[in-house]
Amino acid sequence: MASVKVTRRVHFSAAHRLHRDDWSDEQNVAVFGLCASPNWHGHNYELDVTVEGEIDAGTGFVYDLKKLRDMVEAEVIVDLDHRNLNLDVGWLEGVIPTTENLVVVIWQRIVRGLPERVRLARLVLYETPRNYVEYTGG
Amino acid sequence: MASVKVTRRVHFSAAHRLHRDDWSDEQNVAVFGLCASPNWHGHNYELDVTVEGEIDAGTGFVYDLKKLRDMVEAEVIVDLDHRNLNLDVGWLEGVIPTTENLVVVIWQRIVRGLPERVRLARLVLYETPRNYVEYTGG
Amino acid sequence: MASVKVTRRVHFSAAHRLHRDDWSDEQNVAVFGLCASPNWHGHNYELDVTVEGEIDAGTGFVYDLKKLRDMVEAEVIVDLDHRNLNLDVGWLEGVIPTTENLVVVIWQRIVRGLPERVRLARLVLYETPRNYVEYTGG
Amino acid sequence: MASVKVTRRVHFSAAHRLHRDDWSDEQNVAVFGLCASPNWHGHNYELDVTVEGEIDAGTGFVYDLKKLRDMVEAEVIVDLDHRNLNLDVGWLEGVIPTTENLVVVIWQRIVRGLPERVRLARLVLYETPRNYVEYTGG
Amino acid sequence: MASVKVTRRVHFSAAHRLHRDDWSDEQNVAVFGLCASPNWHGHNYELDVTVEGEIDAGTGFVYDLKKLRDMVEAEVIVDLDHRNLNLDVGWLEGVIPTTENLVVVIWQRIVRGLPERVRLARLVLYETPRNYVEYTGG
Amino acid sequence: MASVKVTRRVHFSAAHRLHRDDWSDEQNVAVFGLCASPNWHGHNYELDVTVEGEIDAGTGFVYDLKKLRDMVEAEVIVDLDHRNLNLDVGWLEGVIPTTENLVVVIWQRIVRGLPERVRLARLVLYETPRNYVEYTGG
Repeated sequence: MASVKVTRRVHFSAAHRLHRDDWSDEQNVAVFGLCASPNWHGHNYELDVTVEGEIDAGTGFVYDLKKLRDMVEAEVIVDLDHRNLNLDVGWLEGVIPTTENLVVVIWQRIVRGLPERVRLARLVLYETPRNYVEYTGG
Repeated sequence: MASVKVTRRVHFSAAHRLHRDDWSDEQNVAVFGLCASPNWHGHNYELDVTVEGEIDAGTGFVYDLKKLRDMVEAEVIVDLDHRNLNLDVGWLEGVIPTTENLVVVIWQRIVRGLPERVRLARLVLYETPRNYVEYTGG
Repeated sequence: MASVKVTRRVHFSAAHRLHRDDWSDEQNVAVFGLCASPNWHGHNYELDVTVEGEIDAGTGFVYDLKKLRDMVEAEVIVDLDHRNLNLDVGWLEGVIPTTENLVVVIWQRIVRGLPERVRLARLVLYETPRNYVEYTGG
Repeated sequence: MASVKVTRRVHFSAAHRLHRDDWSDEQNVAVFGLCASPNWHGHNYELDVTVEGEIDAGTGFVYDLKKLRDMVEAEVIVDLDHRNLNLDVGWLEGVIPTTENLVVVIWQRIVRGLPERVRLARLVLYETPRNYVEYTGG
Repeated sequence: MASVKVTRRVHFSAAHRLHRDDWSDEQNVAVFGLCASPNWHGHNYELDVTVEGEIDAGTGFVYDLKKLRDMVEAEVIVDLDHRNLNLDVGWLEGVIPTTENLVVVIWQRIVRGLPERVRLARLVLYETPRNYVEYTGG
Repeated sequence: MASVKVTRRVHFSAAHRLHRDDWSDEQNVAVFGLCASPNWHGHNYELDVTVEGEIDAGTGFVYDLKKLRDMVEAEVIVDLDHRNLNLDVGWLEGVIPTTENLVVVIWQRIVRGLPERVRLARLVLYETPRNYVEYTGG
């Protein structure tokens, strides 16, 4: 059977700040600029979750996108939406919440929620419509 | 010469239903949910057709996107636009019109309409702006 | 206090057909073209619901957009989403489901679900991203 | 000469929280839901600034959109972008940063930066692509 | 019967330059900036054409959007698409092709192509997704 | 460390024409159609620049997207924005400005502006929202 990638887009709105405690304020601003603002800022994030697999002959589905959405909501979105990525999320503790770091940690949570017959193929995380990152697990 | 991918986006609006005649209504609803609604529903589909090849030194084109659009309109869109994907399309007979199945059958029609010097590289079919599938022929 | 318009966008996917039983097939095709296709077609509709009122000094809200969304889902979307607009919807019986007719009937359902202190100011209903209608109740 | 509306879209990313100090946590959550989260959340805001006036016969402009953008950046965006709307902005002190309240206060800042021959006609402020408010000064 | 606004979006790609022959190069650059570049630049324009009228009880249409599109294509788009707005368009002779001036001249061409029972209600012309003008004929 | 792709989108508005001096007007129109119009036309181009590399453990960045934007602005955008791609750009001399040719030449300019620890992974150049090309350097 043909192997097809299927994608579901989900979203969350969150606050964050790029900052290292072990750096001076000057160092933080020099590296992170406005993103180091002490009282946080935030974004409407969009996340495209792509899984790949063979089409099931019985259903015509690679993977039910409603199931995929429900799993991603439970594993990722419920913890991030309307939260502070630096302060509120146990599984982001110690992680500087750059979009790059976020996409890798989100990958680890989604990949364990999938059945064996599909594989997580790609995550694309948009911080803004003009800035985004892409991870394929490598 | 450099190898470049060129894409043309086309669209069609169609009705469909996810349903198997050899299943009970209960089975159909259990697997397909609202998509099994007996009297159909529908979508504005968008299809990104991507072909790849070397740039022709004479024209600067990999492939004339107007030619690509015209071929895809003739081979695919004219049969699907403002139609019922379960009932009206000869080349979809016996196919459960999931987005996954659609993209594979559409591939087979487009691939035969291309000249040898380019290859069909990718189809992306959007059922909604948040649900889409991607096929590369494998 | 200032009067502000607040909008929530909702969506539904539905099948429909433009057709009059009291016309011949030829008349239907002459007026409605492809939209008269006998076996239906469909769209991803987007609906922008706008209410207007004074900002409540206590909350800073004109109207809680989550409440607005929940009411519109209950009064409109649950009946239309993944349905056939010609066959499945009691409150559309006898209505040719053009976008113009739809927006007027939807208005009548939403307007009765709002409290007195806000007024329904505008509905915009998109049949496709390039075709849409707008109604202000007049 | 004809009267035309001209619009420039600008954007900012900010953190905020909907919350009243004089309410208990329970009251805040009952009214504001997730938007009351104690450690903030945030959005990519988009702001459409529309001014109206007669076309200047000499230039063909109602108002130079680069001038409009520069003024709005100086009066509004520089104070809001990558900031906390509850904590960092002098001219938002004491304002619950709902989208409704924001658009009214932003109006007051933009209106004073315009020359007499044009008038501020409309502000549209998007908190997300599906939630937005509109103010015309009334 | 209810009065509803119906809109069709059309597009064209064109070159232009903001420039007055009776001004020096310095004056042109001072007023028009980069838009005065001597060898032209260009845009993908989008035009939203809105007509208003009562819903026809027989068809459920205010105005057939395919007819509206065909008329706008014939009266406006065929002359502007893939053309130079300063040099190629008879009905733009002597007009500085700012978006403001364009929308007024386009109005004059569209308004005469409509039947009496509908009125041209609004044109919105996008020069870019972030810069647009709006005209209601006043 | 994980390898992630990061993308920044930039834009420019330019005029161009598809045309060969060594061909007759008839040949040019036969191959390039309306794109051969003698007095130019133009587009709002969007360019997605993607670089790939390992996440830096110190900053959480693969590459600072503000740095990437500034470099692309300096190497590419400043020369193309509000210019004529056939006449105004030294590094496009002799190049027919098809989207395919543009993306290859832009690649050569961007690739030399990157440090060794990241690689240029992909360019996507949109001539319109429905026509785009993609190059990965091969």
